[in-house]
Amino acid sequence: MRHILIIGAGRSASSLIRYLLEKSDVENLHLTIGDLSLELAQKKAGGHSNATPIVLDIRDKQQRMSAIENADLVISMLPAHMHIEVAKDCIVLKKHLVTASYISDAMQALDEEAKKNGLVFMNEIGLDPGIDHMSAMKVIDEIREKGGKMLLFESFCGGLVAPESDDNLWNYKFTWAPRNVVLAGQGGAAKFIQEGKYKYIPYHKLFRRTEFLEVEGYGKFEGYANRDSLKYRSVYGLDDILTLYRGTIRRVGFSRAWNMFVQLGMTDDSYIIDNSDTISYREFVNLFLPYHPTDSVEIKLRLQLGIEQDDIIWDKFLELDLFNPNKIVGLTDATPAQILEKILSDKWTLAPDDKDMIVMYHKFGYELNGEEHQIDSKMVCIGDDQTFTAMAKTVGLPVAIAAIKILNGDITTPGVQLPLSKEVYDPILRELETFGVIFRETEMPYIGYNPDKLLV
Amino acid sequence: MRHILIIGAGRSASSLIRYLLEKSDVENLHLTIGDLSLELAQKKAGGHSNATPIVLDIRDKQQRMSAIENADLVISMLPAHMHIEVAKDCIVLKKHLVTASYISDAMQALDEEAKKNGLVFMNEIGLDPGIDHMSAMKVIDEIREKGGKMLLFESFCGGLVAPESDDNLWNYKFTWAPRNVVLAGQGGAAKFIQEGKYKYIPYHKLFRRTEFLEVEGYGKFEGYANRDSLKYRSVYGLDDILTLYRGTIRRVGFSRAWNMFVQLGMTDDSYIIDNSDTISYREFVNLFLPYHPTDSVEIKLRLQLGIEQDDIIWDKFLELDLFNPNKIVGLTDATPAQILEKILSDKWTLAPDDKDMIVMYHKFGYELNGEEHQIDSKMVCIGDDQTFTAMAKTVGLPVAIAAIKILNGDITTPGVQLPLSKEVYDPILRELETFGVIFRETEMPYIGYNPDKLLV
Repeated sequence: MRHILIIGAGRSASSLIRYLLEKSDVENLHLTIGDLSLELAQKKAGGHSNATPIVLDIRDKQQRMSAIENADLVISMLPAHMHIEVAKDCIVLKKHLVTASYISDAMQALDEEAKKNGLVFMNEIGLDPGIDHMSAMKVIDEIREKGGKMLLFESFCGGLVAPESDDNLWNYKFTWAPRNVVLAGQGGAAKFIQEGKYKYIPYHKLFRRTEFLEVEGYGKFEGYANRDSLKYRSVYGLDDILTLYRGTIRRVGFSRAWNMFVQLGMTDDSYIIDNSDTISYREFVNLFLPYHPTDSVEIKLRLQLGIEQDDIIWDKFLELDLFNPNKIVGLTDATPAQILEKILSDKWTLAPDDKDMIVMYHKFGYELNGEEHQIDSKMVCIGDDQTFTAMAKTVGLPVAIAAIKILNGDITTPGVQLPLSKEVYDPILRELETFGVIFRETEMPYIGYNPDKLLV
Repeated sequence: MRHILIIGAGRSASSLIRYLLEKSDVENLHLTIGDLSLELAQKKAGGHSNATPIVLDIRDKQQRMSAIENADLVISMLPAHMHIEVAKDCIVLKKHLVTASYISDAMQALDEEAKKNGLVFMNEIGLDPGIDHMSAMKVIDEIREKGGKMLLFESFCGGLVAPESDDNLWNYKFTWAPRNVVLAGQGGAAKFIQEGKYKYIPYHKLFRRTEFLEVEGYGKFEGYANRDSLKYRSVYGLDDILTLYRGTIRRVGFSRAWNMFVQLGMTDDSYIIDNSDTISYREFVNLFLPYHPTDSVEIKLRLQLGIEQDDIIWDKFLELDLFNPNKIVGLTDATPAQILEKILSDKWTLAPDDKDMIVMYHKFGYELNGEEHQIDSKMVCIGDDQTFTAMAKTVGLPVAIAAIKILNGDITTPGVQLPLSKEVYDPILRELETFGVIFRETEMPYIGYNPDKLLV
């Protein structure tokens, strides 16, 4: 029997736990599912004979150490900033560790000790980061193997609502932390490279410089730039690449409408609105508009933002009930961003039968034997329901698969890792395909940012 | 003989020191002028028999204490964050203190101790803060004395170039710290009240919501909102006021053009531009524009910002040499804001014969016996030359006058003060008039933010 300790039994652990339980007899696995809420852990364990639900308070060192001690491998699904204590215990107790989170500086600092103890600390092996790394490195490695030189890498990912549940004008619902959606793009200019030139987009222009993407069978999407597209330039081995761009996917038209909130100042999370508990949605909007004794909030907003009478944006605002004088915000000491999140949550919360959708889109431009080529690689994953969401599947399954591969000695490179090597991505991507996480690659003419090539 | 220690002999100390030296025989004053640079202190002392220049390193506690010990009153012209050690010594050594800076929390914490020792710690007695407080409180007190109820208070101030030296298209030169000009308005939404309604303007909209001001003999100006117009609401006794707005004055058209820098992202001080030492001005501009293989930086900028071919903004950009491919930034690890400051400094630095100008404009709306009234109070001060600038006069003279009044027992209220009481502002404003710092008051129809009243 091999023992896996899963810390955190929240939404993103559903598919992960189901996968491991289904494999538990064949693979001789026993799962200990630890959560602050015993009820949640029990629910996820589902009475399975190979699973033991336990109460686990991560701040209790004794409890934490003893749970880790009994495991051969630990999966931490905690929020990113909480992994580090678990990771340190895993060093002391000599256990492998798997997380779906970005490698923090504190985690990276454990690299040498992990190596010394022969431990695999696999991180960034969820969706984004995770499947993005693996699916990108697979194609990049293939291009290099045949002697190609990378010219362009663009990578987009988005969590959206599935087409069958897409019933609002924004073509969007919250399928993940709403707060992160409201604050997306803040905290510095977006940075990327196009054709060898550094480019910076300030936050208040971010949603006006989108790119369009077409996915066969799913229609058109748009992408806005992530904050730092250059983060993986070196680890992907792309230091000399001409174009490097990472972005977030939305349905076409979302960004242009979202930009209105940005322009008004409604996404600001840095100060508190006076009387935020008692103001109405309408008064909230009026805070950001000039005073006038008789002009309506509506006409002032139209003028301020230059919204013409037949612009669909207007209907998007009405759908959100933004001008309602009777709906009260009801949040004490709230920032504009918190109030906006509340207003959006009224309309963008998934209904019980709604399904979510993950879309990922990579573009690889390269030169081979003096000729330019492009491969586009696209993946769409639809959730089964509100438990086994597309998000839970794409975040949890790579974690679960990696855990078994580590236990079985298929993944052995010790140290603080992310899934960039073929040893890791190849078997995992292949197994993900059996769960419908399939990348479809198509050859495209390489255009880059030289639209004149279209005319040749 | 009464001894005054002046700490800091920089630009803003010129008029202050001249005033005190001129009064030194009549008032029995001896000045000790301390600065890190003995040369600067000597220059300001000008060999006057009532002045002793000394080297003073404020970080040297012994040196600082001994200089303060020999004084009856200390004037600190240090940067605002450096006052506090001096202030603490003044408590220990029982000396009065005068500064032109905002009262920090640390300074405010000394209030009780200052009171206990009968010490006057007079702060915010320069221009802005300083003359703005005094000239506003004078009118507000007058309105209250005759039984009026304040409805509106708007206050604008700006440091500009004098009309006779105004020879660029921006009608602006740096007359004070350029860095503060570039960063002006950042760090949170501007907050004010109009007709009883809270209003917030995000930074990227700040320069598009200006108000116009007319000063007889000097033409039209514009004002953009300061970050927190409500800061003095309580200390001015204006808790129930309908409109409260503080702003910064520029010549008309400045803000619309400045907004272009904001929209591009050039005023951002939060990240470093790659290769900032070697890029040209033209390449700097191109960082913020989409890549195109053939379109020029100029056409991309026009499109991005919607600048029509006959817009004066274009000439303002050309005047700054913004598209020059041969001028190199030459700053290592610089932020966009630092690069912009460099570019502007090429053109906006005062020439040796240039004069500066301070403009202050208050509006007071009030109700008296059921009728609404308005008083506008305006002050313009022109510098004599580049030593006795309008800035040096308006910052330094109130400090100097207050210092003598404290020594003479005309200002006696102990504690951490700002100049809001008649005891303080009345004699100081009267003496400032003899130096040409004169507020002209005019009765106006009260309109507030109800433009329909214009039609009545």
